[in-house]
Amino acid sequence: MAITAKRCACRLVLEQQHKFFRQLARSCYLKVKEEFKNLDYETESEYTFKYSDLQTTLCDPSQLRQKPEVADLKFGHIFTDHMFKVSYHKDLGGWQKPHVGPFENIELHPAAKVLHYAIELFEGMKAYRGADGRIRVFRPDLNMHRMNNSAESAGLPTFDGNELIKCINRLIVVDQEWVPHYESSSLYIRPTLIGTDGTLGVMSSNSALLYTILCPVGHYFGGAVRLFADPAFTRAWPGGCGDRKMGANYGPTIRVNQMAQRHGCQQTLWLYGKEQQITEAGTMNIFLFYVNELGERVLATPPLNGLILPGIIRQSVIEICEEWGDFRIEERPVTMDEMIKLVRKNRLLEMFGTGTACTICPVDSIYYKGQLIRIPTVEQKLPLFVKIRKRLLAIQYGHIEHPWAVPIE
Amino acid sequence: MAITAKRCACRLVLEQQHKFFRQLARSCYLKVKEEFKNLDYETESEYTFKYSDLQTTLCDPSQLRQKPEVADLKFGHIFTDHMFKVSYHKDLGGWQKPHVGPFENIELHPAAKVLHYAIELFEGMKAYRGADGRIRVFRPDLNMHRMNNSAESAGLPTFDGNELIKCINRLIVVDQEWVPHYESSSLYIRPTLIGTDGTLGVMSSNSALLYTILCPVGHYFGGAVRLFADPAFTRAWPGGCGDRKMGANYGPTIRVNQMAQRHGCQQTLWLYGKEQQITEAGTMNIFLFYVNELGERVLATPPLNGLILPGIIRQSVIEICEEWGDFRIEERPVTMDEMIKLVRKNRLLEMFGTGTACTICPVDSIYYKGQLIRIPTVEQKLPLFVKIRKRLLAIQYGHIEHPWAVPIE
Repeated sequence: MAITAKRCACRLVLEQQHKFFRQLARSCYLKVKEEFKNLDYETESEYTFKYSDLQTTLCDPSQLRQKPEVADLKFGHIFTDHMFKVSYHKDLGGWQKPHVGPFENIELHPAAKVLHYAIELFEGMKAYRGADGRIRVFRPDLNMHRMNNSAESAGLPTFDGNELIKCINRLIVVDQEWVPHYESSSLYIRPTLIGTDGTLGVMSSNSALLYTILCPVGHYFGGAVRLFADPAFTRAWPGGCGDRKMGANYGPTIRVNQMAQRHGCQQTLWLYGKEQQITEAGTMNIFLFYVNELGERVLATPPLNGLILPGIIRQSVIEICEEWGDFRIEERPVTMDEMIKLVRKNRLLEMFGTGTACTICPVDSIYYKGQLIRIPTVEQKLPLFVKIRKRLLAIQYGHIEHPWAVPIE
Repeated sequence: MAITAKRCACRLVLEQQHKFFRQLARSCYLKVKEEFKNLDYETESEYTFKYSDLQTTLCDPSQLRQKPEVADLKFGHIFTDHMFKVSYHKDLGGWQKPHVGPFENIELHPAAKVLHYAIELFEGMKAYRGADGRIRVFRPDLNMHRMNNSAESAGLPTFDGNELIKCINRLIVVDQEWVPHYESSSLYIRPTLIGTDGTLGVMSSNSALLYTILCPVGHYFGGAVRLFADPAFTRAWPGGCGDRKMGANYGPTIRVNQMAQRHGCQQTLWLYGKEQQITEAGTMNIFLFYVNELGERVLATPPLNGLILPGIIRQSVIEICEEWGDFRIEERPVTMDEMIKLVRKNRLLEMFGTGTACTICPVDSIYYKGQLIRIPTVEQKLPLFVKIRKRLLAIQYGHIEHPWAVPIE
């Protein structure tokens, strides 16, 4: 009992620490503002845009598009009628007025920094239509925290995440008919921040565009996936930006994914270093559920050491399993060698990926050095991944009241 | 004499090998085409666009902008009146008709892959107005070779580089009044290739836009630069894409460059690994000119091992110095330790960066672990970097006839 209370307290601190840091950033900002109050360029908008400034322009009813059948939902192919936009111009005092308006193309100067130097980042979130008809977004505060971290790394302006959450909620309300009515589907939310300066030269962008688009989605992958593992390719490395959701982490993976597909694999299992640490699987975090030498069941996942993205589903899976307290949880590096040994000894029970797009995705095999390693994930009687998925879905679709699923107003 | 002949032969092979590979690729393509000739989607445009299809739309004279004074030329801020564009759509048979038209904004779907996953790459080339009034482009075939390599890594369509060279030449002819008349300046050429599919999901783009913009430029940096070296940051790593000119290599450097500037440095000296190998300086390749323990003068530069960009000025510097035969040339890893020892023993004569934007840029100091390491590059009586720069300028501005400077028709 004492341990559980301690765990809960720790979790609370972890959950709240970004709020503390935001508060700290805000008070630092106010102090700086105080010192510079005579400089006329210093305005509130330097720090953040505000929901209270949001303007909305609705589509003409004739422009509204037909909603797709749930069965036709291919990930990321169909978008809703509206989008959210707010621009940043350093010379105009920073963030401008936010706006929800019709979904439309973006016009960019051909030298825009995003097009040349990948000064860009994004987030992935989901809204779910609950059993009670209410729409809930899953842990949006964590996405906002990560998005601001990415912005700092890309030299792009940061903002108050709560203001963006409120703006996005407004967008969802405007397009609420697009939130699917089936539990097999949801509304994917894609906040994006790009550098728009129309000047060549590798330097930070003095102007930026933050926008958000929405798309109704079904399942990201079909069933269990086969992964392609080749130590010749590396996704991230110490001193890089593998723990930020920046565009730069994705472009270089395309060619490896193509290779994976040629080997009949859906995703790449990214390895790192001579010891071939398992780091991520495609765009997912990765978990191994196994029996250790003492006969204990263990859920292991790579640690947040800069080489992997701090996934929100990853964090939620760890927290759910900690709450259950049924087995050990280890955040530590796992190597290919260790995994292969576990498979040989029939001690690897399950392997699954986690991410906002797929929630939880079982792995059934790995193509490695010309051989296929089979993982019995989907052959377990009551697989752990199914139990966790059920718990997550229950929270997301409002079958149980939970602070992680935040209803939009 | 024998050695020189051998060297020349080797160089010839190296220079011509990409043509051979292109030829090989072309013949493979033709073979594949032959096998698939009954499939109706297989068209010539699948392989490349063609200069013979180029259409030109000139600006209305009222739209033409005033040319800037050479003294006002800030790198990458002023663009010419026209641009080149050609789009690729897999569903429409591949490459479409190329077009030179007025310089204008680019319209993109908000989900365009370039804006989210950095599916993008570019090149940097220059055109020079020679002493004889003719305009020459410096080694464009090497840029085309590198651009196709980048395209392959980004999962974007490749093309026949000769066709793009001819299209770019046409663009330069249209905007020829923009090629500066002073030897302190030139016309910077920026071919860019971006993935334009309007769908979310990390996968290759079925549509793309290749475009080229031009800007008259002066010097990239003023004089000698100070570099910021911090082993905490890594630009590229084995198994990554550091040897491709993809946007993904640049976005993550912005934050480090900002740190460099806060320490009074113009660029970052990128280090790699525990032994702190010197790899690149900002967007430049790096050279050290020193006296070794035998009293011999040596020009050293990191090898093309995947960690650095295969620079065209880098290659040209090596080839020029090989031709001179005045000192040893070594392509090998150089560590910070070695460099510091050379400085302490007064044996490091010069350090300079090379790149298309700056041509050759001397380094006068390095900020490293809180200390400033001074390099006597600009204090030499007859610095090597000045001698090489003179040779390059003589070629680029047509003071000597040379196959590297290709006159546009």
